[in-house]
Amino acid sequence: MEKLKTLLHIDELGKWRLTLTNAKNLIEDVGFENVILEIVANATAVQIFDSVDKSIDHEMPGLLKQMKELSENHVTIIACRNALKANLINEELLPEFVTVVPAGITRIIVKQTEGYSYVKP
Amino acid sequence: MEKLKTLLHIDELGKWRLTLTNAKNLIEDVGFENVILEIVANATAVQIFDSVDKSIDHEMPGLLKQMKELSENHVTIIACRNALKANLINEELLPEFVTVVPAGITRIIVKQTEGYSYVKP
Amino acid sequence: MEKLKTLLHIDELGKWRLTLTNAKNLIEDVGFENVILEIVANATAVQIFDSVDKSIDHEMPGLLKQMKELSENHVTIIACRNALKANLINEELLPEFVTVVPAGITRIIVKQTEGYSYVKP
Repeated sequence: MEKLKTLLHIDELGKWRLTLTNAKNLIEDVGFENVILEIVANATAVQIFDSVDKSIDHEMPGLLKQMKELSENHVTIIACRNALKANLINEELLPEFVTVVPAGITRIIVKQTEGYSYVKP
Repeated sequence: MEKLKTLLHIDELGKWRLTLTNAKNLIEDVGFENVILEIVANATAVQIFDSVDKSIDHEMPGLLKQMKELSENHVTIIACRNALKANLINEELLPEFVTVVPAGITRIIVKQTEGYSYVKP
Repeated sequence: MEKLKTLLHIDELGKWRLTLTNAKNLIEDVGFENVILEIVANATAVQIFDSVDKSIDHEMPGLLKQMKELSENHVTIIACRNALKANLINEELLPEFVTVVPAGITRIIVKQTEGYSYVKP
């Protein structure tokens, strides 16, 4: 079976639970060894990585824990630098499993040219 | 003219009217004989198939009727089993035009590898 | 470098700022000479072109100005005729940089068959 190359796009803070559920359902359905999965966060979605203000959503610690577990199963978690700057989030303080790219939008487009399927939960 | 292979993705209950309008506009524009159209519902979108609680949206009977008509024009209507379980919806009681898949997310990705265009209304 | 063929889909009036920010970030990241970019607006997103009622969103003049600037950098701005009709918007009064297509949904699908990446901000 060819690996399912997949990009999940999230650009709203409130969509993390849904997005991570999609990731987990995919992995449970086909097995993580059959997936190449990348989650690209831009716009307000990156606010989940704000190390200072953890008060905006009490679910966040749980969601970050899920992200960490996914990253340990070879899921790539990407944050957009433009969005981090716009939301005044210090790149140095991001969780170690987050990869920063200059522009999330470019990443999303380029990955599709490489055969990734695009899903926007 | 090659048939336009299309997957419409819906994951919010409130997006059915918009999604079905997209389906109908596509069919009216190019003719249903020129389209291979599939609608994949996951997350809360599957609540429209709850045969017990019809009170959450008084538009539902009309929307289900539109779905039935689309299915008679060869549109495939797919529901995600994970979402049905999460929303406590009995698979046995679904409208007969609904096809259940183990994971909607997998369906969405695999169809794109088969050349389907993805649209998220 | 091959040009990045990209289609941004917008179907909500409130998503214009986010959509145009995505367009600008893409162009700033790779240069407008490396992008073929099209923005397709359907459903309520076309209300921004309502020449009569400018009161619904005081940001609109600024957003229309951004659209005009993007169009001068070879970004194509498309409006769906079905949506214009549904929102009672006179096609004759649209800004000159807007191109009307019979059905936005068809445009979105056909462009993907031509190798465009799809992004829904």
